[in-house]
Amino acid sequence: MADRSRPGDPAPYFETHVFACVNERPAGHKRGCCKSRGAEPLRNYMKARAKELGLDNVRINQSGCLDRCELGPTMVIYPEGIWYSYHSVEDAEEIIQRHLIKGERVERLMLRPEDKRPEDRLVKAEQ
Amino acid sequence: MADRSRPGDPAPYFETHVFACVNERPAGHKRGCCKSRGAEPLRNYMKARAKELGLDNVRINQSGCLDRCELGPTMVIYPEGIWYSYHSVEDAEEIIQRHLIKGERVERLMLRPEDKRPEDRLVKAEQ
Repeated sequence: MADRSRPGDPAPYFETHVFACVNERPAGHKRGCCKSRGAEPLRNYMKARAKELGLDNVRINQSGCLDRCELGPTMVIYPEGIWYSYHSVEDAEEIIQRHLIKGERVERLMLRPEDKRPEDRLVKAEQ
Repeated sequence: MADRSRPGDPAPYFETHVFACVNERPAGHKRGCCKSRGAEPLRNYMKARAKELGLDNVRINQSGCLDRCELGPTMVIYPEGIWYSYHSVEDAEEIIQRHLIKGERVERLMLRPEDKRPEDRLVKAEQ
């Protein structure tokens, strides 16, 4: 994470701030969209679970298009700036348990800056 | 900013990631909402200006409710985690020029963690 903080900056308002893309594009758009890939129920699941688990200093927000549509549904977690591509309740739960609660990383779901298409992730995984 | 990064974390995908709340609540809700306070055209202005100015590594996203409705329109800028309450094109432009381009802070518009209501900001400004 690039450190862009400055002396005197206020303390964080949320310790962990999740932005889950729920953007919808018109049907048939060549990039697709996170919403058509199932983002909304997954984001709702994460929000409900965070509440259920009492994760008071975590906020699970929906966001507009994060511009990595082909890899969706995507989310980004700040301030650490970690991106995930997640596709099921099991993926979402693993991100909650390992990343949000323990501060770990869920390597198998993480996106790297060079990931632009699902093929990029597959090639990497096979190397 | 709390440093929640870990060794081996990927480089940031966006150098600066702005989330501007555009949440809408039903008319008459006691907390109000950023949308009714004019958030949408201000967010659109910032997005258009970032493009116009060629700020390639900055993304201006809309987000759902950031839960500081009374202080809206609000935005948060990551990874630095700085919050602003902004109310005009002039405010938005100052955030672009000083925070996004120069990495400075626009103190007069910043929110602190203890700010919950507009009165909190006024009291502080008068001290």
